[in-house]
This record gives sequence, C-alpha cells and structure tokens, in this order.
Amino acid sequence: MEKESLEALAEAVLGQILVPMEASGRHVHLTKEQARTLFGHGLTPVRPLSQPGQYLCKERVTVAGPKGKLSNVAVLGPERPEGQVEISLTDGKTLGIQPPVRLSGDVKSSPGCVLVGEQGEIALDCGVIAAQRHIHMTPEEAKRFGVTDGQVVRLQTYTRRPVVFQDVTVRISPKFAPAVHLDYDEANACGFRAGDWGRILT
Amino acid sequence: MEKESLEALAEAVLGQILVPMEASGRHVHLTKEQARTLFGHGLTPVRPLSQPGQYLCKERVTVAGPKGKLSNVAVLGPERPEGQVEISLTDGKTLGIQPPVRLSGDVKSSPGCVLVGEQGEIALDCGVIAAQRHIHMTPEEAKRFGVTDGQVVRLQTYTRRPVVFQDVTVRISPKFAPAVHLDYDEANACGFRAGDWGRILT
Repeated sequence: MEKESLEALAEAVLGQILVPMEASGRHVHLTKEQARTLFGHGLTPVRPLSQPGQYLCKERVTVAGPKGKLSNVAVLGPERPEGQVEISLTDGKTLGIQPPVRLSGDVKSSPGCVLVGEQGEIALDCGVIAAQRHIHMTPEEAKRFGVTDGQVVRLQTYTRRPVVFQDVTVRISPKFAPAVHLDYDEANACGFRAGDWGRILT
Repeated sequence: MEKESLEALAEAVLGQILVPMEASGRHVHLTKEQARTLFGHGLTPVRPLSQPGQYLCKERVTVAGPKGKLSNVAVLGPERPEGQVEISLTDGKTLGIQPPVRLSGDVKSSPGCVLVGEQGEIALDCGVIAAQRHIHMTPEEAKRFGVTDGQVVRLQTYTRRPVVFQDVTVRISPKFAPAVHLDYDEANACGFRAGDWGRILT
C-alpha cells in the first residue's frame, strides 16, 4: 500500500473513535449592516473554514475595550443576524472586559465593545463572549459517539500537555463537520498542535 | 462560632484534602551579576510570594524576542545561579520564541532572548521556558497525599471551567508551602479565580 493511502486509512480509522481538534483565534461575526458601516461594503470571503459554509473574510477589525485594543482581528462570514465578538479570557484582560463563557449566539447581557473598521466604527452594547468549548458533529457521528445535541461531555486530549477538559458541549447539525473547538488559552494549556486528536468521554 | 473562625476552620479542613491553586504570571529570575548589569544594583524586594523566601522585586524588565517584546515583566528574587525567563506559550507567540515546557531550573538547550533593564541589557543564550505545571508541598503534606518528589499526578480543578490537568509534577521540600502553580494559559483554560482549589488524583 502507498504511504499516502496508509495515512488516509489511519486517519479514517482514527476519525471513527477520535475527533480532530482545532484552536479558534479571536474573531468577530457581523450583521450585513455592521459590515457596511465598518467597511463600506459586504464581507469578502478569502478562505473556507472547517465548518461547511463558514469562511474567513478579507476584512479585519480592531476591537477596543476600556483598557486596551486588539488590532487585525479576523472577521468570519457569512453575515449573522447579530454581531458577536469571541475572545479568550487572556484577550479580555488586555481589553479590560470580562467576557462570560458562552456558546456562540448566546450574547444576552454580555459586555459590549467598540469595533473599528477601515470606513467606520460601531459601539456594540453586548456581544463579547469567551466561547464555551464545544464539539461539532453530524447526527450520524453523534449516533456513533452515543451523544445528543447540547450534551456536556469530557474530552481527553492527545496532546503534548494532556488534559481532560470537562464541560465540553456537543453541538449537532447535518451542516457540521466533526471538530473540537478550543480557544487559544485552552489550546496552549494542553499544548495543542495542528493535527491533534481528542477522545470523547461520556 | 464566629463567621471568621468558621471560615478558618473550613479552610483548614479543605487544606487536608485539597491544594490551593495559584496562577504564575510571566517572570524572570536573575543572577547577581545580571541584576547589576540591568539595574546598576542588586534586587529590591517589595512583596513576599507564597513560597517562603521568594519575593517579587521592585525592578522590572522588558523581554525581547525576534517577533516582539513584553514590557514590565516581573523579576522574582532572590538571585539564582542562572538566569531564567518563564513565559506562557501565548507569550512565546508574541515574542516569536517556542519555549519548551520544563520544570524551573531545567534550561539546558532552551531558547534565549534579550532582557532590557533601566541601566543595561543582556542577551541570554538560553533560559526561556514555559513552566511545567507543578505542585509545591512539604514532606509532611506529601505523606498525607501519598505522593513522592517528582511524581507525575493528575489535578482535578474546582474552577468555573473544570479540567483534569494531567502531567502535573509534585515538588517536595521542607521550604515549600502547598500550592499548585499554573501559567496563565492553564489558569484561563480552567477559569481559575484567586482562592480556587484543586484535588490531586494519583
């Protein structure tokens, strides 16, 4: 068997029992209107992300808080019905904002910030969160792993600084690709490197 | 019983089965000679640390790497036989340095950096590490927890984002006070707040 075929086979077998891990950097989701205010136009896709339909945009923003700012922050598309800023707790320290740990979309009563783009700026009343660690998967994969949507599981990381993360939320949709999403605090705490895998413990 | 006495009692009981956790920010250890070069004089203690005999100094340094620098970095005393810079993997990204994960003192073949003080600067050939997570304790406490010096244990954190850290090294000395030491990546990954406790799992 060719080396490439063997590697592909090994990956397919691993994917039956493990989930690929990914580290999500700080990023922003915007509404159509917010994108227009910040950049003078809609979002420009440059690269697809692991989750089907999601993409990194050409546009970048500065996120400003009472104590500091983070420049060159990624904007992810497509546009959403509500703006959202996902940062790590370390980033929160830089900005002077204490983000609650929440699942994406759950921004009620979260702190706000200022977003600055090339063409304008916006003051968000709320929307700054630290992403709750979570695992994306399809209904078929959920069946295989024996988990349901919203279930909280543990994740054993096979990384340089191994950790069992507790409070990891399972998110299921036919639109998803299997992936554990950690923020950079979590990724560094477990010594994550691209290509690492984790095992769901229920 | 007074509320204060009850709290002290609760703390004493907890201390029998749990270990207090601490987050260590980035910091530098210096030799006498290095301190003299950087500041023109020896180190000036301003505040004792949890480990007996260790102290935070008035002096601060800038740590510079090929990609960036960190200013206002804490210097810890007393002076040591060898200089050492302890940063997180996140800090390493800022500096453009990939620190190995090591126990304090184990700096062989680690990357170097430049230290800048008020009076001078130093190029370190090696000494930049990310601290291996560890637990300080006395021989009496080690006996109670059933662990030996250098033993690698797991630690269950009782924190907002609970985690079981694996690869936690036990360090025993009659000079130590009981404390889990995490870096800020690890502290944020588990949602650590001052006063949190962890439980040793062997």
